[in-house]
Formats: sequence, structure tokens, C-alpha cells
Amino acid sequence: MAYELYYWSGIQGRGEFVRLALEESAADYLDKGRQPDCDGALLDFLARRDLAQPPFAAPFLKDGDVVIGQTSAILLYLGDRHQLAPKDEAMRIWTHQIQLTIADLVAEAHDVHHPLGANLYYEEQKPEALRRAKYFREERIPQFLAWFETILARNPSGEAHLVGAAVTYADLSLFQVVEGLAYAFPRRMKRALADAPSVAALHQAVARRPRIRAYLESSRRLAFNEQGIFRHYPELDG
Amino acid sequence: MAYELYYWSGIQGRGEFVRLALEESAADYLDKGRQPDCDGALLDFLARRDLAQPPFAAPFLKDGDVVIGQTSAILLYLGDRHQLAPKDEAMRIWTHQIQLTIADLVAEAHDVHHPLGANLYYEEQKPEALRRAKYFREERIPQFLAWFETILARNPSGEAHLVGAAVTYADLSLFQVVEGLAYAFPRRMKRALADAPSVAALHQAVARRPRIRAYLESSRRLAFNEQGIFRHYPELDG
Repeated sequence: MAYELYYWSGIQGRGEFVRLALEESAADYLDKGRQPDCDGALLDFLARRDLAQPPFAAPFLKDGDVVIGQTSAILLYLGDRHQLAPKDEAMRIWTHQIQLTIADLVAEAHDVHHPLGANLYYEEQKPEALRRAKYFREERIPQFLAWFETILARNPSGEAHLVGAAVTYADLSLFQVVEGLAYAFPRRMKRALADAPSVAALHQAVARRPRIRAYLESSRRLAFNEQGIFRHYPELDG
Repeated sequence: MAYELYYWSGIQGRGEFVRLALEESAADYLDKGRQPDCDGALLDFLARRDLAQPPFAAPFLKDGDVVIGQTSAILLYLGDRHQLAPKDEAMRIWTHQIQLTIADLVAEAHDVHHPLGANLYYEEQKPEALRRAKYFREERIPQFLAWFETILARNPSGEAHLVGAAVTYADLSLFQVVEGLAYAFPRRMKRALADAPSVAALHQAVARRPRIRAYLESSRRLAFNEQGIFRHYPELDG
């Protein structure tokens, strides 16, 4: 049975991390976020009273009777099924640890434009966003990229991958977060990636993987925009 | 060999979620965060160049040669080893999904007093904290508690536990986040827990578990304070 991926229409968002894993796996999946009236269908699904394990939020993946929410949990699940994570337990949890750290970076990237909360528009919290953006650009982006650079350099199997000698969902997610940050903060990321050449190389290598490239060139890949997590507000870059 | 838990001295913080799992398991562990000069030792450990898998941040758990960072990843690891998670795969990942949602709530609870970033003191971002606190109190706490209440009510094994018929690390973490929120927002949580009786009952039941109670009554349990994640600033409550 095909997987069903539920996510909001119109944005890449956190759903995109799941899409990349599904695309790289050539998994059979239905992207419910690309169907007509999908946002209503998503809310209807979450409101179902017969669901023993209702996710708190989207994205969530339906695999037959199993429904899994939380991006990192979905990737843990898909990683085992589609050889996107090592089987060895210590390496498997290391992959997950990296994913959770990427998830922290994604949350911070979102909070740059919404420091006071998701209930207000960006325009209602712009002075606060300017202050938070400075900290994110100048301290957090370098800290995170330096860590990725370090763990690539220390991978005993070589710096082509974050874990082991083959692609994992963590590689795909690092591609996506670099892609998103480069969209949102092009000036800063140009300099930051110059200091993180292995991260930059991995980002490019993932983009060249045949299935990922085919996906990125397809109409299934939405463009980044200012409704998503990674938003290009020039005043926040620098 | 005993586990070694690395975390910052003086606060419960994210390390406390790991401590509760270790205490409930009666696991043999050395709490490095309670040793002299532990903050320096933590930084020295993270700076080690011989570490193939250096965590991005504390807490992290050392189990022989394995070093695991990210609270939720540590709990995934401990859950398997100490019967704090079901063996069945779908139930195991459901437990993890709940944990990841609790982790999101913990991050939001922190950001209430630090909406502009961890680089500034609370006193430097107080007007912004007041605005964010309103959203957190009035919208986010009820949303999260309602979700916990729902999944307790729908647990086919009964509402004494979040997952199945036995304690999991998710139960322990829910206890801790309720405890922390009740410290930080006593007025709001009194009302919120009245609307979430199953959550309140689980919180009390975990506190009464013999090993947890012994831990909470020991000097090993630090008090909450205004350096941690959950801070009691009366002006943010209401």
C-alpha cells in the first residue's frame, strides 16, 4: 500500500524533509498536500475521533494503519525501511541525533521571523525579528555549520556523508536546511558556506543524486516562499 | 560499566528528562553535572578531537564508547535497554513521537523568557517575553494539554499511561514538563490542569512511583530556579 503524506499545501515546510526521503527511496507515496482541498482534509484527519494515535501536528505519514507524526520520527521509521540509515544500533541513533540537531536548527530558522509566536504576522513582530536575526546569523548559523563540518571531517568512512559510506536521511535533511538557509539568508550563507566546504560539497552532491535531481526539477517541488519556514526577508540577512 | 550523564551544573534543564529515566530504571549512572568543576569537564569533553560523534550540545550520555546527544535520542536508547518503551515497533515510535512533542513544548517554554535568543538576559528582552508569554499561556499550554488528555483517553490500555499498560519514558517526561510548567506558571497551570484531569492524575501517579519519589525527595533533585528552562517570573503568569 502506498504511503500517504499529510502536510499543508503551498509550502515546503517540515514536510519537505519527509518528501526528500520518500523521493530518494523511490517509495510509492501519495502527497496529500498536493491534492485539492488538502488543508481541510488534513484538519479533518486530525479531528478523527477513531484515531488512537492522533499526531499533534503535520507533517504526518500514514502507512496502512500506522500514523506517525513528528518529522524526525517519520524519518526514523522510513530510514529503517528504505536503507536510509545504518542498521548498526549506535550508528542508527547517531543518524537520529544528527536529524534532531537539524530539527533544532529548522525551529530556530523559523523563530527568526516569528520570535513572539506563530499567532502574529511577521509584520507585527519585525523589530523583534531584526534583533533575533542578528543572533541567528552571527552566532547560530556558524555554530551549527561548524558542527556539521566537524562531524563530516571525523566520519571514519570519509566526508562525503554524515554517517558511514552511504546516503542517509541526515544527508538529505542537511541538504534541505542548507538550501532553505541559502534562500532565506543568501548573503550570510555565501560567506558561511565558504567556511564549511564539506557541508557545501555535500549539499551539492545531494542535489546531483539522480532521484533528488529529478524531484527538484519536477513540478512536485514547490519553490520557497514567504509562508514557509525559510523566508527571504532581505532586512534579516546581512 | 556505569552510564555517565553530562549536563550543566545547577539546573534541572533538559538533563532532568534523562535523570528521571535513569532513576526509574535504577540504572547505574554517574551524574557528571553534580561533580566539582563539571561545566569545565563538559566543555572539555565536547572539545575532544578524538571523538568521532561529538554531540552538538548537552545533555549527552556516555555508555562505554557510545556517546549520545539530544534528549529524545538518549531516551530512545534508554527506553530499549530498560523497558521504558514497548518493543512493538509501532508503539515504540508512538512513544518517541510523544517525546518529540514534549520536547517541542519544552523548547517553547524556554523561548517564553528568551524570545530574542539565548545571547541576551531575560531582563534585556522582558517586553518581548511578556508578549510571547500571553500566546504561550493562552493558546499553547491549552493546545498541548488537550492533546495529552486526548491521547490518554484514547489509550486502548487505559488512561493511566500515555502508551500501553506500563510506564514509559514519555510518562516520566510528561510528569517533568507538567512539574516545570506548574513551577513557572502556577496560576495558569492550576486552571489548565483542572481541564486536563487525566494529565493531572498521571503527573501525580509518576510522582508517587517509589523510585521517582525517592529521587524527588533526595538531594540529587535540584530545585527549579531562574537559570533553567522553567522559570517563575510572576509577570509572565496569569
